[in-house]
Amino acid sequence: MSIKIGIIGYGNLGRGVENAIRQNPDMELSAVFTRRNPESLKISTETAVVANISEIEKWQGKIDVMILCGGSATDLPVQTPEYAKYFNVVDSFDTHAKIPEHFANVDKSAKASGKVAIISVGWDPGMFSLNRLYANVILPEGKDYTFWGKGVSQGHSDAVRRIAGVKNAKQYTIPVESALEAVRSGSNPELTTRQKHIRECFVVLEDGADASKIENEIKTMPNYFADYDTIVNFISEEEFVRDHSTIPHGGMVIRTGKTGANKENQHLVEYRIKLDSNPEFTSSILVAYARASYKLNNEGVSGCKTVFDIAPAYLTSKSNEEIRATML
Amino acid sequence: MSIKIGIIGYGNLGRGVENAIRQNPDMELSAVFTRRNPESLKISTETAVVANISEIEKWQGKIDVMILCGGSATDLPVQTPEYAKYFNVVDSFDTHAKIPEHFANVDKSAKASGKVAIISVGWDPGMFSLNRLYANVILPEGKDYTFWGKGVSQGHSDAVRRIAGVKNAKQYTIPVESALEAVRSGSNPELTTRQKHIRECFVVLEDGADASKIENEIKTMPNYFADYDTIVNFISEEEFVRDHSTIPHGGMVIRTGKTGANKENQHLVEYRIKLDSNPEFTSSILVAYARASYKLNNEGVSGCKTVFDIAPAYLTSKSNEEIRATML
Repeated sequence: MSIKIGIIGYGNLGRGVENAIRQNPDMELSAVFTRRNPESLKISTETAVVANISEIEKWQGKIDVMILCGGSATDLPVQTPEYAKYFNVVDSFDTHAKIPEHFANVDKSAKASGKVAIISVGWDPGMFSLNRLYANVILPEGKDYTFWGKGVSQGHSDAVRRIAGVKNAKQYTIPVESALEAVRSGSNPELTTRQKHIRECFVVLEDGADASKIENEIKTMPNYFADYDTIVNFISEEEFVRDHSTIPHGGMVIRTGKTGANKENQHLVEYRIKLDSNPEFTSSILVAYARASYKLNNEGVSGCKTVFDIAPAYLTSKSNEEIRATML
Repeated sequence: MSIKIGIIGYGNLGRGVENAIRQNPDMELSAVFTRRNPESLKISTETAVVANISEIEKWQGKIDVMILCGGSATDLPVQTPEYAKYFNVVDSFDTHAKIPEHFANVDKSAKASGKVAIISVGWDPGMFSLNRLYANVILPEGKDYTFWGKGVSQGHSDAVRRIAGVKNAKQYTIPVESALEAVRSGSNPELTTRQKHIRECFVVLEDGADASKIENEIKTMPNYFADYDTIVNFISEEEFVRDHSTIPHGGMVIRTGKTGANKENQHLVEYRIKLDSNPEFTSSILVAYARASYKLNNEGVSGCKTVFDIAPAYLTSKSNEEIRATML
């Protein structure tokens, strides 16, 4: 009687979902869908099947929720509306500016099929969004701050790796401690991009590459680095493998605001996460919202939802009586 | 077209609700209900009425949500089920052990009347409960910690004031910094009551009272102080009025947990608040959930709810489109 989950895409996120399912006894992994030859893919759940994505329609009625683990740039805009025709789906679509368009496409598809689709699930968008909303409704007169890091930015790491002469690279986004302190003090500072985050790069060069030229190329790269104070470290391949093989991340959402007859009282609300593995944390959130999509659909709900639309009780396998008695 | 709010009880919480309503343009205060002679009560909202609680039934249809600002010991167990017969209601019932019983009583009443009642709204129970739930569903294998303070405990302050020879007193609950550090480090410490919080008292003595006898009486008081390291400071009435007239509070909910194929990755989730005014922050939360009760009831929902049952989108006056575009 457990909830049957399918995974589409078996990268870091998909593998994280597979691990997370094992931490949730009310769920089981039924199948992983891949664009590759299924024979070429080795998964760690012995009871689950690997299938080619072209066969997915045959799984209608056999899988309760599909968790989409592709990328926001090209995979999810196509996949989420497509698979919401057949399954409850959850995705981590994170291109903030395109969320309204994605929502509309997915909603149309999920309403037609009578399924529940929950989009933009993760920590930002996701848990950070929830914390922005909760803090805003409590403190309507106040100011929001979001800091990211210390953690690996995949996009910035890719940008550095694309530079000629760079063999490998990793970029860490780091909140500026003095900016954080100013925010937490309640002084409501106006902070520029440069004042909020530092960018630090660890770069392995190709033989004979010109370090100072590459350093300059990184620091002046528009959109990615030009607006930041950037530190560039050149290291050996050994050091890179030894010290920079994990994908940590974190960050905080802070709101400060005032209440009282004369706005004399100041309040601070801070939500902070510190993650050894960014994809595994995101996967764990996806799995909890997969449960919610299943429970909601069983109640006859359909259409596209975001974390804002999901009552917290739907996320847990525990009964309402139990969570009121133990967590309230 | 604004949401019409009634307040029952005009202590710190009731006054906080009155102030919070002014920060929410979609709401207006219609009336404050009191057990006292209405003439004796001066409120700060000129457009609102003060009425005796005995007249409350006449307000059916004129008030959308009643916010109950009485105490959990004797007021709310009676008032919330009673007024849910006529109105959508929100309360801050915080006697954790009695929540199941209170829920059942209120649910029966609200289902019969077709109204929505949201109970145990505030920060603990309330925002802290939500954060426990969210962190638990994301990290099923982990450990929860709740710290309170630095802040005033009304119950402990009252207990000290009841000692013969004590003229006035205030008690602050303070998290132990080393315990917090151990928790945040991810070492999953087992912490005793004494290891988690210190209690600090500021006491004004009556003329001729025996300080050392009173200090001993405080430190050995069962349930309140005996299990804690307690600091007792005797101060003058002037110092008391100057330094201890506000009601600050705060605290944090922390969960650490592991993910990964071999549980090799550690994560920390922390929700932290720091409040100049405990009652005003609680009041601001009550007002946001009053909006949710109104919106839910307009959709035909009835019965007793807690923060776990309320989708975050119901808390805001903004449209779903707007919050998706600006906060997600």
